[in-house]
Amino acid sequence: MSKTLEEALGAALKRAEAGAPQKLAHALQYAVFPGGARVRPRLCLAVAQACGDSAPELSVASAAALELLHCASLVHDDLPCFDNAAVRRGKPSVHRAFGEPVALLAGDAMIVLAFELLGRAGATNPSRLPALTVTLAQAVGSPFGIVAGQAWEAEASVPIDTYHQTKTGSLFTAATMMGALAAGEDPLPWRTMGEKLGAAYQVADDLLDCVATVAEAGKPTRRDVALDRPNAVSRLGVEGAVSRLERLVGEAVESVPECPGRQGLRNLVMQIADRLVPESLRAA
Amino acid sequence: MSKTLEEALGAALKRAEAGAPQKLAHALQYAVFPGGARVRPRLCLAVAQACGDSAPELSVASAAALELLHCASLVHDDLPCFDNAAVRRGKPSVHRAFGEPVALLAGDAMIVLAFELLGRAGATNPSRLPALTVTLAQAVGSPFGIVAGQAWEAEASVPIDTYHQTKTGSLFTAATMMGALAAGEDPLPWRTMGEKLGAAYQVADDLLDCVATVAEAGKPTRRDVALDRPNAVSRLGVEGAVSRLERLVGEAVESVPECPGRQGLRNLVMQIADRLVPESLRAA
Repeated sequence: MSKTLEEALGAALKRAEAGAPQKLAHALQYAVFPGGARVRPRLCLAVAQACGDSAPELSVASAAALELLHCASLVHDDLPCFDNAAVRRGKPSVHRAFGEPVALLAGDAMIVLAFELLGRAGATNPSRLPALTVTLAQAVGSPFGIVAGQAWEAEASVPIDTYHQTKTGSLFTAATMMGALAAGEDPLPWRTMGEKLGAAYQVADDLLDCVATVAEAGKPTRRDVALDRPNAVSRLGVEGAVSRLERLVGEAVESVPECPGRQGLRNLVMQIADRLVPESLRAA
Repeated sequence: MSKTLEEALGAALKRAEAGAPQKLAHALQYAVFPGGARVRPRLCLAVAQACGDSAPELSVASAAALELLHCASLVHDDLPCFDNAAVRRGKPSVHRAFGEPVALLAGDAMIVLAFELLGRAGATNPSRLPALTVTLAQAVGSPFGIVAGQAWEAEASVPIDTYHQTKTGSLFTAATMMGALAAGEDPLPWRTMGEKLGAAYQVADDLLDCVATVAEAGKPTRRDVALDRPNAVSRLGVEGAVSRLERLVGEAVESVPECPGRQGLRNLVMQIADRLVPESLRAA
C-alpha cells in the first residue's frame, strides 16, 4: 500500500534527522509537524487521483515535496531579515525557538530534502522525474517561484500580479501540474486550476491578515499594513475581496479538465475553498 | 557539441535572471562569476571523462549543479548569523554587496537551480537522474551534507571528523560519484577518491587560514582561531598538516578505480593537488 502524505513526510524527516546535529533535527520536526492545512499537497494528490493516480509513490512524493518547500519558505520568510515573525502556526517561529542559524539551515535542508524525496520516488518511474523536478524547481526558484517572489520585496517598485503569482501562486500551479505529471498526464491543462486557486488563496490570506484574530490565523495579523505590503482588502474592501475569492474558486472549479475523477475533484475544491474564508466572515 | 562548465553555468543563470527582480539577478551573477578554482565541478568532469563520458550533457549539468551548491553554501555561510564575512573571492561578500535578504534568497535560488539544471539534463537520460539527484541531495542536506555540517557549529560538542566530512568532504564525494553516475558507471568504487580529496582540501583550507595572506586566500584569514573552530594546523603544526595533505592526495590517486582514462585522471589529480598547498609553503 502506498504511504499517506503524513507518513511520507514523517519518513523523509526521519531519514534527515538520524545522525544529524540535534538542534537541526528538532527544528526540522518542529517546522513540519503538526502541519497547517496541507492545502498544496492535498491539491496535488487530489489531481493525481482524479487523473487515475497510476504511480501513487510518485504522487505522494510530489505532494510531500511541495509541503516541505512550503514549510521551508515559511521558516525563511519569518527570519529577522524578512518578516521578523515571532509566531507561526500558533507557536514560536523556528528562529525564535532554535535561533537564527539553525532556522536558516533547517530551511535549506527542507529545500534539499524535497528534491531528494522526489528523486527517490522517481527511481520507480524515471521517465516522469525530469518534468516533475523542473516543475517543482520553477515553482520555488528564480525567476518565477517563491524565492523570486520574496525578492520582489527588495525592489523599489513591485509589479503586484507578478509578486503574488511568484510568491503564492507558483506552488499552487506546481501542485496541480505535478499531480497530473505524477499520474503520467499532460500537465498544461491543469495550470489554470492551480493559478486560480493560488490567486484565491492569496485573497484569503489577505482577508485573514485584515479581519482574523491572531488565534484564528495562528500567526501575527495586520502585518500587510504594518509592512506596507499590497493587500486585496485595502484595494477592494472586505466584501469586494470575499466576492473576488468566490469568483476565483468558481473559475478554478470550471477549469478542471476532463478526467476520470472530474466531479469528485470539483467537489473537493469547493470544500477546501469553503474553509478559505475566515470564520468570522462565513456567517455573513 | 556539449557545453563547457562555464557555458552551462552561464546558461542556467541567464534563465534564472530573465524576468527576475534585479537585485536577485545581479546577486546570482555576482555569486557565481568570476568563479574560484571550480575544483569540485572539474573533479566531477574528470571522473566522467575517465569513465568514457557517455552522456556529456549529464556530466556537465552535474558539474554545474555541484558548483551552484558550493556557491550557495559560501553565500549562506558568509551571512551575519554564521561567519559574518565581509570578503569572499577577493570582493565584498554577497550580503555586503546586496544586503542580507537578497543574499539569503540568492543562496536559496542557487540550491533550487542546481536541481533544476540536473532535472533538465536528466530528460536526455532519465534512468540516470534518480541516483544523480539523491547523491547530490545527500551531499548538501541533512544528516550528512553541507547543511548538517554547518549545523554542527550550533551544537555544544562537535565530532570533528563528522564535521569536516559533512561540511567539506561531502561535495567532493558527490563530485566523484556523480561523475561516474553521469557516465552510467557504478558510483561506489569512486567514493574513496572523493573522500580523500575532500579531506585533503580541508587540510589545505586550514593551512590557507593559518599561513596565507588575505590576498592569497581571497577571504579573511585567521578565522578558525578567532571563531574557535577546529583546524588541522593547530593539531599537527604546519609541517604535519602539509605532510597529511600529501598523504591524502597520494591515497586519492591510488584509489582511482580501473577505467579507460585512469592514468590521465591520476595526473590531473596530482596537478590539482599541487595547487592546494598555499604558495608561501610551496618553495619549502
